[in-house]
Amino acid sequence: MLSGVNLEAYRGRDCLVTGGLGFLGSNLSRALVLLDAKVTIVDSLIPEYGGNPWNVHDIEDRVHINIADVRDGTSMRQLVRGREVIFNLAGQVSHIDSMRDPYTDLEINCRSQLSILEACRANNRDVKIVYAGTRQQYGKPRYLPVDEHHLVQPTDVNGINKMAGEWYHILYANVYGLRATSLRLTNSYGPGMLLKHGRQGFIPWFVRKILLGEPIEVFGTGEQKRDMNYVDDVVRAFLLVGATDATNGEVYNLGGSEVVSLRGFVETLIAVAGRGSYGIVPFPEEGRRIDIGDYFGSFEKLRAAVGWEPRIGVAEGLRRTLEYYEANLPHYIEEIA
Amino acid sequence: MLSGVNLEAYRGRDCLVTGGLGFLGSNLSRALVLLDAKVTIVDSLIPEYGGNPWNVHDIEDRVHINIADVRDGTSMRQLVRGREVIFNLAGQVSHIDSMRDPYTDLEINCRSQLSILEACRANNRDVKIVYAGTRQQYGKPRYLPVDEHHLVQPTDVNGINKMAGEWYHILYANVYGLRATSLRLTNSYGPGMLLKHGRQGFIPWFVRKILLGEPIEVFGTGEQKRDMNYVDDVVRAFLLVGATDATNGEVYNLGGSEVVSLRGFVETLIAVAGRGSYGIVPFPEEGRRIDIGDYFGSFEKLRAAVGWEPRIGVAEGLRRTLEYYEANLPHYIEEIA
Repeated sequence: MLSGVNLEAYRGRDCLVTGGLGFLGSNLSRALVLLDAKVTIVDSLIPEYGGNPWNVHDIEDRVHINIADVRDGTSMRQLVRGREVIFNLAGQVSHIDSMRDPYTDLEINCRSQLSILEACRANNRDVKIVYAGTRQQYGKPRYLPVDEHHLVQPTDVNGINKMAGEWYHILYANVYGLRATSLRLTNSYGPGMLLKHGRQGFIPWFVRKILLGEPIEVFGTGEQKRDMNYVDDVVRAFLLVGATDATNGEVYNLGGSEVVSLRGFVETLIAVAGRGSYGIVPFPEEGRRIDIGDYFGSFEKLRAAVGWEPRIGVAEGLRRTLEYYEANLPHYIEEIA
Repeated sequence: MLSGVNLEAYRGRDCLVTGGLGFLGSNLSRALVLLDAKVTIVDSLIPEYGGNPWNVHDIEDRVHINIADVRDGTSMRQLVRGREVIFNLAGQVSHIDSMRDPYTDLEINCRSQLSILEACRANNRDVKIVYAGTRQQYGKPRYLPVDEHHLVQPTDVNGINKMAGEWYHILYANVYGLRATSLRLTNSYGPGMLLKHGRQGFIPWFVRKILLGEPIEVFGTGEQKRDMNYVDDVVRAFLLVGATDATNGEVYNLGGSEVVSLRGFVETLIAVAGRGSYGIVPFPEEGRRIDIGDYFGSFEKLRAAVGWEPRIGVAEGLRRTLEYYEANLPHYIEEIA
């Protein structure tokens, strides 16, 4: 219990997790199971995305798994009925993919969000809904650390559509009384990340390289600053904001306890793993054009609201991550696109 | 010629105006014809929207009118080819309609914008494109006058989708080199406005009431502050930013020379018309929930960039507006939805 938010309140609560077979969704579902919530997972298992049944193999008999696509409005209208809390994590998350195929990103990150919210408006007005936003909405920072007063100036289609998706949530809170909150996530990592390809961020890709004994390529100068959150910290943020009405209609940054350069991050990863190598290489054009330079965020607003702060540092988080993948690697590297 | 921007440059230039049969588009097209530009108008004449062939009856033999919907990607891919300047004004502009049918607003204000930009990326990378944004993107002002540093916090679906549509333009400028600019319009009025229904803003609706001899209802307190631009000032802003590369990748507010209360506006309208009456009535629920309170904008950034400032005050603008509709009313009131 932190700042008056009691996670015991999840006991018996009817929770829906969209994107629940993905990295964050599966870890969140596991935490909800431990809190004795009633958990329904919605996931479409799009092959290129992060959904992976192995992510929930240890809890699959304690959750209800419903395969459906959030773009399927008819199914979603049924699936939102009667839920007390919806953790709305389903999304297209690759910046690169959003530039290659902006329409699919639009369908998933805008239209589907509208249809989930319209379904709640029609059938579940009192629902608490927590949306997974992203630091990508801010674009290239004008000052650091970035707080919630920073202008949103996205540098890729994904950032724009996530911004719209977030604002639909805030709008439906303001206008229709849905109890919606958005968390703007920074780089998140841990057990359950997609390792199949490198289009969902640098951390899973670097972890994959270490696990396969391949050299890591760091794009740019290697001096780009980032913050990051271990998945348990991210999950706790979702649980805390989902359990209180003090966060309704608000947006909050997450943020890391440390600011590291990409080079520093890779060196920590290699040190923790006890193996690996890296080189600094120029940005490929496709990535350079949407790069945001240095980024790290302020999480003071979230700390003030629910007492959240990150607990797991980078070295410890990476140690746990590598330990998981060393035991489970075949379930994550079956395919490279 | 203002601040080095030479409107003579439009002579012979191949210009496309989306939404060109609507209020702003038709007035802009007329100005382009006067500047000897080569003008193609795209409009779908959706019955509920502002497109009206009468708006261009005086120039119809000097423009090419192509009936097409911006949602029709195949047609748009052909229509953007070879254009030197695209004035991208087609949109769903009703705040109320966007709440009743958010999907149509999404299709027109998001998906169609993406498809126009994708078409330019594929076939017309060097195009200058000027997008019609809206003050509605800002939502309820945190300070006044609102400048471009103000956070965008839209209060309706239309504001969110227009925000996304704008950012696609800026993104395609930053990433692909399209020469895109967005103008965030405030209330615009003048000859050619839709008078068929009251869902496109208060000015046309009040003008309609005066013309039909019906009493005007002002919602709320009547003290809500607004600024507004006569259409000739809006058109000049589009022409100026469209003629210079100094505005590429940038967003600019327009803004009025006067700040007026709704009550003051109506009293001016009645004085100019020499007839009419009004009453103050409570907000209908549907409008109250998306109302933004006081709004007026700063146009200093646009003034600095291209020397623009509004020239026509409210009384003179309304005089010209009423004069136009008194001569053309049957072409604008044929239908009430």
